[in-house]
Amino acid sequence: VADALDELLRGAAANPRVIGLAGGLPCPTLFPRRELTAAFLRALQTRDVPALQYAWPEGFPALREHIAARLARRGARVKADEIIVTSGAQQAITIAAQLVVRRGAAIGVDAETYPSALDAFRSLHLIPTTSPQTRVIYRMPAVSNPGGITMDDSQRRAALAHARFIIEDDAYGDLRFGGEPPVPLLATSRSRVLYVGTFSKTLGPGLRVGFLIVPAALHTRALRRKADDDLQTNSLSQAIVQEYLAHNDFDAFVQRLRRHYRRRAERLMAAVRRHLPAWSFQPPAGGFGLWVSADGRADEAAFLRRSIDAGVSFDPGSRFLTEGVARDQPTTLRLCFSAVPEDRIEEGARRLARAWTRLRSRAPARRARRRSGALR
Amino acid sequence: VADALDELLRGAAANPRVIGLAGGLPCPTLFPRRELTAAFLRALQTRDVPALQYAWPEGFPALREHIAARLARRGARVKADEIIVTSGAQQAITIAAQLVVRRGAAIGVDAETYPSALDAFRSLHLIPTTSPQTRVIYRMPAVSNPGGITMDDSQRRAALAHARFIIEDDAYGDLRFGGEPPVPLLATSRSRVLYVGTFSKTLGPGLRVGFLIVPAALHTRALRRKADDDLQTNSLSQAIVQEYLAHNDFDAFVQRLRRHYRRRAERLMAAVRRHLPAWSFQPPAGGFGLWVSADGRADEAAFLRRSIDAGVSFDPGSRFLTEGVARDQPTTLRLCFSAVPEDRIEEGARRLARAWTRLRSRAPARRARRRSGALR
Repeated sequence: VADALDELLRGAAANPRVIGLAGGLPCPTLFPRRELTAAFLRALQTRDVPALQYAWPEGFPALREHIAARLARRGARVKADEIIVTSGAQQAITIAAQLVVRRGAAIGVDAETYPSALDAFRSLHLIPTTSPQTRVIYRMPAVSNPGGITMDDSQRRAALAHARFIIEDDAYGDLRFGGEPPVPLLATSRSRVLYVGTFSKTLGPGLRVGFLIVPAALHTRALRRKADDDLQTNSLSQAIVQEYLAHNDFDAFVQRLRRHYRRRAERLMAAVRRHLPAWSFQPPAGGFGLWVSADGRADEAAFLRRSIDAGVSFDPGSRFLTEGVARDQPTTLRLCFSAVPEDRIEEGARRLARAWTRLRSRAPARRARRRSGALR
Repeated sequence: VADALDELLRGAAANPRVIGLAGGLPCPTLFPRRELTAAFLRALQTRDVPALQYAWPEGFPALREHIAARLARRGARVKADEIIVTSGAQQAITIAAQLVVRRGAAIGVDAETYPSALDAFRSLHLIPTTSPQTRVIYRMPAVSNPGGITMDDSQRRAALAHARFIIEDDAYGDLRFGGEPPVPLLATSRSRVLYVGTFSKTLGPGLRVGFLIVPAALHTRALRRKADDDLQTNSLSQAIVQEYLAHNDFDAFVQRLRRHYRRRAERLMAAVRRHLPAWSFQPPAGGFGLWVSADGRADEAAFLRRSIDAGVSFDPGSRFLTEGVARDQPTTLRLCFSAVPEDRIEEGARRLARAWTRLRSRAPARRARRRSGALR
């Protein structure tokens, strides 16, 4: 099923007439192209061009100093030497999981969570579960995906109380609409938190620059794992991000992003309320998407196909559901407001409502037909 | 021990007074900086900036078309859709090994081989062995590392006769001094060869653009593994390499590299013959290094430390030895001619000879002392 959905989404992404509410992509017009170009040109002029050469597995020292300084401003005191630059947050998550979860063991996750983390855990032969009593848990405390929810104090306490290790995925931490992100769990428990960060949601995912901080006792193994996987994170992107951070006010840039994405989120929420008033959602505290429940249930692939025919795409909810779709659970989906042209958001919701209404009005007939088909 | 050697080599690499014959780095003055800059600028001007955005796990289509076209000129007919762009050759090797070797099973390798492949295999719980009768073998048919040797026809036939799967690492294939690389094993057996290529040795390792081609039956698993590991290879480097290949004569550039590295190899061979006439080596057919055997044996770490003190570094041979250093095996080492300033090669060999001579002349005394120390 996932492959059929994939095919539909790939087709939709390549079709300029489809309003793209799928994918979780940052807005391409917000990439700081001019500043990144200046950073590239400086990097290429550096003697012996480290941007094009091999580098050590842990990453560029000055980049790690910048990351450490930013974390310190958020209350987490980490030395640059404790940071490993990774090929995006995804690699950091996979390395972290391998360090603390044995094959065949469970890893605690939210009921709705980041699909590529679920995929990676399963491919490593770990068992994602929503059971609260696991030795290791994976969480997004600042801004969750797909919900865009910030963990409250009691949830933070519960996480720290139960688990031996916590993989803290802070991918969207910078993009909390309300302002500064909360203190990371890392600041509270250095010896139990494996912290994952990234520049993907801000400077650009194509750069593939993430980072991982693990408890001191696990550092050597993490670094070896990183080197064995791909030797090192690409030098060019590291050099560019390093030069960018040295010459630009990254925090001011991030504040602009927050305002921009907040405005888009509000626009999408208003459009869903207007065109799909029976659907429900919790307003997100940050991030790129809105996690919504429909007023009833439909075949997911059929709904996606019909929506794409109507000229709009979305991320099917089943992807995010750790335990799969429960019996009689309403259809869920993630609607991304982040990358679509802003003035198309309203029309996207209108098309989605049209597809949903038509599918629902025909659904009983189709169900009957399928049932009779099964009898033949 | 590996960590102590690492520390020595890191110190040496950071010391400008040490002539660097270690590391296997390409020559930084040969990076096509101007052309890569033009490629970057074009990529950043592309609508919606795919160079900074997320991309599909298999990689950029036009880049894969270029790779397919180059392979076709070498006799291997592969569709672009069969190519997966990876984060360097290292990731391609680790994915390939996971597809065809079970945990705990053996993988056949050369007696001297690429250390990071050995490391990766071991970290995946595979067992590298020089035994000729394994189900899967890892080979560098065009240009081996560290030897720089091209497999002859009987060796190629033997590889294809015995193993069910062959991981063909063609990292140095472009850099065969004698001219065009041989036909890859991939061309002979599409259903049994997992082919690994890279732009690291030519355009620059910092870009981290490699690629993997697997038998059709394994393609879906390979792609899933790639996505689970790090989602995708970095878009920026892919866009740059793609633009570079579209607007430059890559083959002419590679021919210049071959001549350049051949000249450096000859210079190093002459210097070793002059200053260390009792050492032996086989002239390499390509690549970045010379694999040499000393006239006798010394403690490797002591020799490396003494060499660095004398102002020259090298890659300790034990790193490359699958079965470790055999009893009474002479000291082996890899001397890289690729990245050192060319006019320092001669002096590098002179310093190495000085360190070796001094160590050998003192070796009996030190051994005696250590033995008496052990008696206390």
